[in-house]
Amino acid sequence: MLGRETMRYAIGIDAGGTHLRVARLDPEGNILNKEMLVVGTERTADIFFKTLSEKIRLVAGAHRKDLAGIGLGLPGICNQKEGVIHELPHYPHWHDVPVIQIMKEGFSCNVVFDNDANMAALGEHWKGIAKNLPTFIMLTLGTGIGGGLVLDGKLWRGEEGFAGEVGHMVIEADGKECVCGNKGCWECYASAGAVPVGKTAEGFSKAADEGDSEAKKFWEKFGHYLGLGISNLANITGVEHFVLAGGVSLGWPHFIESAKKTILKGAYPRLAKKIVLQKTSLKGEAALIGCAFAVFQTSKI
Amino acid sequence: MLGRETMRYAIGIDAGGTHLRVARLDPEGNILNKEMLVVGTERTADIFFKTLSEKIRLVAGAHRKDLAGIGLGLPGICNQKEGVIHELPHYPHWHDVPVIQIMKEGFSCNVVFDNDANMAALGEHWKGIAKNLPTFIMLTLGTGIGGGLVLDGKLWRGEEGFAGEVGHMVIEADGKECVCGNKGCWECYASAGAVPVGKTAEGFSKAADEGDSEAKKFWEKFGHYLGLGISNLANITGVEHFVLAGGVSLGWPHFIESAKKTILKGAYPRLAKKIVLQKTSLKGEAALIGCAFAVFQTSKI
Repeated sequence: MLGRETMRYAIGIDAGGTHLRVARLDPEGNILNKEMLVVGTERTADIFFKTLSEKIRLVAGAHRKDLAGIGLGLPGICNQKEGVIHELPHYPHWHDVPVIQIMKEGFSCNVVFDNDANMAALGEHWKGIAKNLPTFIMLTLGTGIGGGLVLDGKLWRGEEGFAGEVGHMVIEADGKECVCGNKGCWECYASAGAVPVGKTAEGFSKAADEGDSEAKKFWEKFGHYLGLGISNLANITGVEHFVLAGGVSLGWPHFIESAKKTILKGAYPRLAKKIVLQKTSLKGEAALIGCAFAVFQTSKI
Repeated sequence: MLGRETMRYAIGIDAGGTHLRVARLDPEGNILNKEMLVVGTERTADIFFKTLSEKIRLVAGAHRKDLAGIGLGLPGICNQKEGVIHELPHYPHWHDVPVIQIMKEGFSCNVVFDNDANMAALGEHWKGIAKNLPTFIMLTLGTGIGGGLVLDGKLWRGEEGFAGEVGHMVIEADGKECVCGNKGCWECYASAGAVPVGKTAEGFSKAADEGDSEAKKFWEKFGHYLGLGISNLANITGVEHFVLAGGVSLGWPHFIESAKKTILKGAYPRLAKKIVLQKTSLKGEAALIGCAFAVFQTSKI
């Protein structure tokens, strides 16, 4: 821990399909205070960044002058080189939004940003269940499915930062319609998007706890599709370790056996037996912690 | 070029679902002589390695004492650490075959082996169309679909050498039955396995050249599924460059437009526009050249 006089803070921001979380963290990745709000239906970049700035000021409070930097995890395609977020399927009005420029206008500190699943992967790798794993895939099961690929100790972002859009892997040609405009994307079958309209993952999880057969059937099918996508990822990348987080991972006890069964059938037998699924150990805070990592230790991964 | 007195050779072996190619190459990757045979229906490891040894002796000829090493490209799961090939879906009797040990019993030189698509990726990276690409995915469209992932200048083999089994990515849940025992694998739709029984990719390609509407329709659909799988790979890995080889790439003029159309729809718009598909520049010899690379320059990639 740094001395009081040099103590600086990071602001971590985790923007998902439904929630916005803003936290202040110390250089050890401890969350000191946090705000959360539901993202409204008005999702233009203007409204988003106005709300975000207010929350950052609220969370930073008297420590605003002690900020080392701000880290943003956003659920879309982040172009690190240009400081621009190209697309966010769950924020349909956003196209080529200059995130870094906008943030720099309001705050004088360092600003870093990345896909929310990448930030969650950094968090798990720094402080969570993936601490000792040089290679793993982070899966955030929320409104969609985000992916963060850590390969041999490094976050793999692809040729231009577009890697990890695993939720839009098609697993059912001509299947369900996806928010991205395509059909049959994995996240239509194994994220909150798979939950029938009017129901919630939380409700279905409680119902399954109580033995409700419709809910149990839902999670079994969910697990099957989850396993199918994980088999695909394993067959393609040869990665054996998967860390699952996000709101829908609530249903874990009800979908995990079904997921494992499908993986044993879907991935190469020798590989299938080695696949390990683990639940986040950071609860809902992996991305926030990853943001702090990105602020304090950009050179490390 | 090394001097005559130090000149040594590599034997390259490319074993596919239907053909076995054995060649002698110099340290520059030039093929000096080559033998090819059709793999019979009797595909036990015993018969395979007996035939292979004969062919190697034939190809090496008087140069047997000058062999620097033998490189094998095999269409299955290669465990480099144990020197064992675990599974070859197109050679169903093979399970945990100790390739290196078997080869060492017959030949005293260095023996290296890898998945055939990995060898093809090495070949393209060394001498082919991917020479200046630090990051690309090699796709071998033959009896199945093999994949070789070169990420940031290195062949990515996964945690234990199991990466690149892209042909067994499920794109149609509960779809066509695959040789691997699963259903809906990509290679059932976009490899020679997609060609109707009694027809060949070569025949369908010629027919399409001549304007046959059934053949044209076949390639259009083939291209759609090829594009669908490539979109998936791009969305997952963020890789934008794909090199296609293998017998079925014969149909290129007839499937490429349809593949590109599907990619523009399937991958993230910003990413989709950047995706480049290229045909091998090494004809059918990428894997053989990659084997020579593996023999002569194992430390480089």
